[in-house]
Amino acid sequence: MRYHSRNIVKPGDLNPYGTLFGGRLLEWIDEEAGLYSVIQLESSRVVTKYMSEINFVSSAMPGDIVEIGLEVVKFGNSSLVLKCEARNKMTRQPIITVDNITMVNLDETGKPSPHGKTEVIKGSDQQYEM
Amino acid sequence: MRYHSRNIVKPGDLNPYGTLFGGRLLEWIDEEAGLYSVIQLESSRVVTKYMSEINFVSSAMPGDIVEIGLEVVKFGNSSLVLKCEARNKMTRQPIITVDNITMVNLDETGKPSPHGKTEVIKGSDQQYEM
Amino acid sequence: MRYHSRNIVKPGDLNPYGTLFGGRLLEWIDEEAGLYSVIQLESSRVVTKYMSEINFVSSAMPGDIVEIGLEVVKFGNSSLVLKCEARNKMTRQPIITVDNITMVNLDETGKPSPHGKTEVIKGSDQQYEM
Amino acid sequence: MRYHSRNIVKPGDLNPYGTLFGGRLLEWIDEEAGLYSVIQLESSRVVTKYMSEINFVSSAMPGDIVEIGLEVVKFGNSSLVLKCEARNKMTRQPIITVDNITMVNLDETGKPSPHGKTEVIKGSDQQYEM
Amino acid sequence: MRYHSRNIVKPGDLNPYGTLFGGRLLEWIDEEAGLYSVIQLESSRVVTKYMSEINFVSSAMPGDIVEIGLEVVKFGNSSLVLKCEARNKMTRQPIITVDNITMVNLDETGKPSPHGKTEVIKGSDQQYEM
Amino acid sequence: MRYHSRNIVKPGDLNPYGTLFGGRLLEWIDEEAGLYSVIQLESSRVVTKYMSEINFVSSAMPGDIVEIGLEVVKFGNSSLVLKCEARNKMTRQPIITVDNITMVNLDETGKPSPHGKTEVIKGSDQQYEM
Repeated sequence: MRYHSRNIVKPGDLNPYGTLFGGRLLEWIDEEAGLYSVIQLESSRVVTKYMSEINFVSSAMPGDIVEIGLEVVKFGNSSLVLKCEARNKMTRQPIITVDNITMVNLDETGKPSPHGKTEVIKGSDQQYEM
Repeated sequence: MRYHSRNIVKPGDLNPYGTLFGGRLLEWIDEEAGLYSVIQLESSRVVTKYMSEINFVSSAMPGDIVEIGLEVVKFGNSSLVLKCEARNKMTRQPIITVDNITMVNLDETGKPSPHGKTEVIKGSDQQYEM
Repeated sequence: MRYHSRNIVKPGDLNPYGTLFGGRLLEWIDEEAGLYSVIQLESSRVVTKYMSEINFVSSAMPGDIVEIGLEVVKFGNSSLVLKCEARNKMTRQPIITVDNITMVNLDETGKPSPHGKTEVIKGSDQQYEM
Repeated sequence: MRYHSRNIVKPGDLNPYGTLFGGRLLEWIDEEAGLYSVIQLESSRVVTKYMSEINFVSSAMPGDIVEIGLEVVKFGNSSLVLKCEARNKMTRQPIITVDNITMVNLDETGKPSPHGKTEVIKGSDQQYEM
Repeated sequence: MRYHSRNIVKPGDLNPYGTLFGGRLLEWIDEEAGLYSVIQLESSRVVTKYMSEINFVSSAMPGDIVEIGLEVVKFGNSSLVLKCEARNKMTRQPIITVDNITMVNLDETGKPSPHGKTEVIKGSDQQYEM
Repeated sequence: MRYHSRNIVKPGDLNPYGTLFGGRLLEWIDEEAGLYSVIQLESSRVVTKYMSEINFVSSAMPGDIVEIGLEVVKFGNSSLVLKCEARNKMTRQPIITVDNITMVNLDETGKPSPHGKTEVIKGSDQQYEM
């Protein structure tokens, strides 16, 4: 798994119990999946169609850094299937795992549209320093 | 299914394509599941432990009213299993369905704790006018 | 009074003293009044025209659930007059009361426009479980 | 009336109809009334107790600058009564007027507490350039 | 320096260490510089082009009131150069200083455009009470 | 330069002209610099002390993906100097550049504190796929 984006937990991200609000984390994941798909499909419009079961393995505290990893499971015709993990950057403890996030490429009218991609973009790998 | 909370889609809730940002809807659902559980379990601390697969059946546009319905599937020992649907209030078209959202009751130290509840609170039904 | 929407108070909703920021609650109420009116008037555009005096009876703490109730006072020609109460869901203690919130139905050009409604939509009542 | 704070209307501040969301403006007013009172009462804790009727005279569009004016109506024992107007900075057209916003000074325990002030702080006037 | 806008630090504005999040303050400053320029240039479209070095002299705590002052350094052809200070309203201690914020007037197509202004708008001074 | 975090521009991030609000981008940069420093210094408390001049080279539109790159310029005694670039992920066009962002490590009492680090953490490099 490669980790792409990260957020530091701030007071505005907390639930009433002082830990990371789960809905906020789902928002971060959905945004990351969307933009990752826009990049891989070189598309200007990709939306979330499906998420498989989500396990909330642990939580996070203010000041914790949450990093979100994604990897491609499968290129469909108009879809892209991703696997996702959000983890605590420092302890590497998983926070949420999702095995299948299915994104769909849309055309101008909002209908599913073939994207013509079959693999992760070559040359797009970059070193990423902790 | 009984519908409890609703939000009107505003420009700040949109993805770049002008439809409701999926992450925002997941945030609304997670918040609603949390507060519904706090009510049913008469607990001061309940968190999301698990969500089963999520189907994004349709989207919503600015001005659409999204209502979120929840019903209890099962009372566990320290858990509460909910079923959820978000739908368009006007057209009644489903937007997202989730068959199993498992919430867990926590004690002061953040450990799972029996809640002692076995059924939906009596007398808590209220008329709710469209 | 029927209670329709509810929010759980999170750290991002607080004033500097650690209680619910009044402006946030007014925002919740205004949004709720707007969407309730869109539903009752079967209109796509309704705005707030007037609020009568607002009493801040009590406040709320993080983790409290605030529910917002509305009822129709009067159907005008192009207006709808509502009464509103926000209360603490658990203690049922009122937080804010507003006797008259006047909403106005607008046409495409933003001018007041008759809505043709004279009563709360029949069949729109639904059970709403605490 | 002296105008103190101002906000430029951005897309995230809009209602679904593309004009300024009323709830957002109420939030700006409540925040401004609170901080103005903290300054005048040299107190660290002041909350909103009451607002008299609010007229939404006109709306605002993206890019409009909304300025908020406050003036002291009366110094009570533990209260401060303000008058408020929000207007369009460029056209000077009123957007909202509120004749009486009553703020209350609180002590450490959250109880009303005498503030000992009887007039607007001298020497606190400053030039403010449009 | 004249101080124009002010914000009270709320929990949603904090970094994980409980002090004002620097990014939030930069957001407040950028917004204030933008709207001040729209006013001075009587333009409907002005954007930030450049900020000189920013010193974070001190921080702020929840409940502190941060006021932002701006003054004109120079009117360029299509630009406006401002100087900015954000300070603690109560202690008058500087929080951030920026000697040069260059704003650019844009035409309909987003290109720099002469604004024709050479001085601060006369008659625009208003008393501003602490 | 290695790019670490990215955001997709949504309607809630826009200025009134429909392009990315500069203050929002500064917020993203400040957050990214803070969390990157927490990682490199293995510290729990790092704040922004100084930013050198900021050039707003271009803007971004809704749907654009903005990625933020950081690299270490120098390890000081209690400080860490970073260089930053935000660019459009697709076109690789720079949006903002900042040559020097100085972060300071703080102890429990909020005083600068030596961090003992002299180089970027070994083994922290990870592949990062576009």
